[in-house]
Parts: sequence; structure tokens; C-alpha cells
Amino acid sequence: MVETLRIKELVLEKNQEAAEENRSLLEKNDVLCLNLISSPGSGKTSLLECMGKHWGPRLGVIVGDVQTTLDAERIQGTGAVSLQIETGGSCHLSAEMVQHALSKMDLSPLEVLVIENVGNLVCPATYDLGESLKVAMLSVTEGAEKPVKYPALFVRAHAVIIGKTDLLPHVDFDMERVKADCRKLKNDVQVFALSSKSGEGMQSWQSYLEGHRASGRS
Amino acid sequence: MVETLRIKELVLEKNQEAAEENRSLLEKNDVLCLNLISSPGSGKTSLLECMGKHWGPRLGVIVGDVQTTLDAERIQGTGAVSLQIETGGSCHLSAEMVQHALSKMDLSPLEVLVIENVGNLVCPATYDLGESLKVAMLSVTEGAEKPVKYPALFVRAHAVIIGKTDLLPHVDFDMERVKADCRKLKNDVQVFALSSKSGEGMQSWQSYLEGHRASGRS
Repeated sequence: MVETLRIKELVLEKNQEAAEENRSLLEKNDVLCLNLISSPGSGKTSLLECMGKHWGPRLGVIVGDVQTTLDAERIQGTGAVSLQIETGGSCHLSAEMVQHALSKMDLSPLEVLVIENVGNLVCPATYDLGESLKVAMLSVTEGAEKPVKYPALFVRAHAVIIGKTDLLPHVDFDMERVKADCRKLKNDVQVFALSSKSGEGMQSWQSYLEGHRASGRS
Repeated sequence: MVETLRIKELVLEKNQEAAEENRSLLEKNDVLCLNLISSPGSGKTSLLECMGKHWGPRLGVIVGDVQTTLDAERIQGTGAVSLQIETGGSCHLSAEMVQHALSKMDLSPLEVLVIENVGNLVCPATYDLGESLKVAMLSVTEGAEKPVKYPALFVRAHAVIIGKTDLLPHVDFDMERVKADCRKLKNDVQVFALSSKSGEGMQSWQSYLEGHRASGRS
């Protein structure tokens, strides 16, 4: 057990080194980088399609998936630049995987880079990939108790997106409770309720990113 | 890396030993055991509430969660016997954790025991807990590509539950494609489309379990 823990520590140390290198490369290229984490099927790829329509080739996406390149193909269709990492079984992305992907991308046209992590609320939470912002996403169909059940993610997330609000009339979801739970776990978190289908709430999410880019340059 | 792999092997070997012990204990007590795996928020706990109303004290549930005992409390309300394992950060249940839980339960009144795994489609897939049936669950709000994106689970699942069918009119979900994809990955899989909210499809799921119990005793 002790040996397993030591190996875990070494893995995390090596991950952190790569994360810092990624962060410094992205800052040098003036790219705002998001690490987007959610359950499978929360609507990450649909959100990225909406973002692709807004940002076009100024948006880059690195898509992490255990298997298939379906998501990267969907995003590419919007004009954004996307690159798929098939993790081949691993349940989260590591900073080294992202570093390898970055080495194959032209960062100069990019303003925002989203790393779409493997669909999983547990394992990706503690791996720094070199992002500027960690973003947690859940959908209104998943129930309201996600933040308290998966605190490792929600204590770290700078922003929380609550998606699929178009389905609110058909599900039991206590929006105010979720927002309050998120703030209890991280008091300065920004919460965005939106729908990729209806477009509701999308503008304030895009403005948040524009604002971060503007403040990063000042 | 080689050392990490060796440790992974040892962990899996140890898990397998405990799994076989669990399986033999459960068979001796004539308990049909399910390992229920899905994303967070797919509706596992709501399904278990429905099952609790049907089976009452003949149903036992071991609930795995990273944090909180919310789910066990919900299930207990139906008359089923439930016990919570807080994994304290681990992203899947192990056979040893289940063994520890079993040692605290009275198995004699039970006919069915459901192990509700941690909400995660990746990590729980390869850990045998000693179950009779591995059951994968997804909801119609999660999109149709889950089986092809998470094949490690779907090649192993004896049954797949497609839940929240009451939301079908409000989402894009290709039921026939999902069923076909499941069968491509495992040709003898049983697929159940159901809604814990409306009760649709619940009867054939319960009959499937009754059938398995009957055949197990013959």
C-alpha cells in the first residue's frame, strides 16, 4: 500500500511538472485554457459546438475520450480547431497527454483552448493540466446533489455550468440549492445556467470568457 | 511504468480473490447479486427506490459513493435494506470493500442484492465484485453514443438499462441505434428501456430478475 501511494505521488509530481510547462506555453501564446470536466453525457460536446459557432477558428479543442473520435468530428464541423486524444482506457487526461497534443497544434490563431476531459466526475478532478480555469459541468437531468457528492471537483472549479436548462420543465431540479451548494464548496465560483439547444444563458458564458481574456492581457 | 503495471496486477489479483469469496458467500445464501454501473445522475438511485417498493425487505443495496450517505437514506425509505460505503475519493468499488460490507449484513432475508457502484463509466468496468450480473445503466438524456465510447463496460454487461424514457419526447436519442450498438459489443445482452418516474418498462426488468432467481435455484 505504501509503495502504491509513493508511485501515485511520483505520477502526480511528474504530472505537475508537465502542467506548469503547458501553462507557461499557453500564457506565452496568450491562450485562455479551460479544463472542462463533467459526467459522460452532460452536454460538453454540444456546448463546444455552440462555442465553435461563436469563436470559429479562434477556438481550439483538445478532446479526451477513452475510445472513438466522434466528439472531435462534431466540433470540427463548426470551424473550431479540434484534436482528439484517445486515452485507450485511462479515466482522465494527464498533463503529459495534453503536452503531446499541444506540440501538434498551431497555437498562434487561438484565443481560447478547451480541454474536454474524459467524462468522469472523480478521477480528472485532481490532475492539473496547465489550464487557466477549471470548469465543472452538470446537466439539470442529473439531479441536484452532484456538488455535495463529488466535492473534490467542485471545491476546485472556478466556474460551474448547469446545462440542458431547456429540460427544466420536465425534471425535478432545484437550481437554487445547486447554486448554494456550489458556493458553499467554493465561495467565489461563477455559476452559469444555460442551454446549448435553446441558446439561453450562452451569452453570459461567452462574456465571462471574453472578460477573462481581457483581464489576462491587461 | 513497469512497476506501476505490476502493482496494478497485484491489486487486480487481490480483488479477484475477494470477488470469488463474495460470489461463493452470496450463492450459498441464494442471493442474486447485481453490480450496477452508470454515470453520475443516470438514475440508479431512483431505479433502486422503485425496486425497493417491489421487493421490500427481500432487496439489499450496497451503495458506493465518493462522499455522503444521501443515496442510502433514500433507498432505506422504501423498506429495502441498504448500507453505504463511502469510498473517500476512490473512483470505483473493490471486492474487498464489498466483502467488508457483506460481513455487516444479514443475508438470510435477501433475494436480490444490488451493489450501486460509484457513478463512473470507466473505472468500475474492470473490477469484479463477485456479482452474478453486471448491469450498465444510461439515461436517454446522455446521448446515444455511450456504448461505443465506453466499450470496456458494455462488452461485459449482461444487461443494459436505458432509463428516463419519460424524457424521450424532449431529447434527441436514437433508441434503436443504442440497442444495436449494445448488441454489437455483446450479442446476448438484455436491454431494458424504462422510466422510474412513469413506471414504463419496470415490469419486464423485475421479471428478468425473477427469472434469474428461478433459474439460479433450479
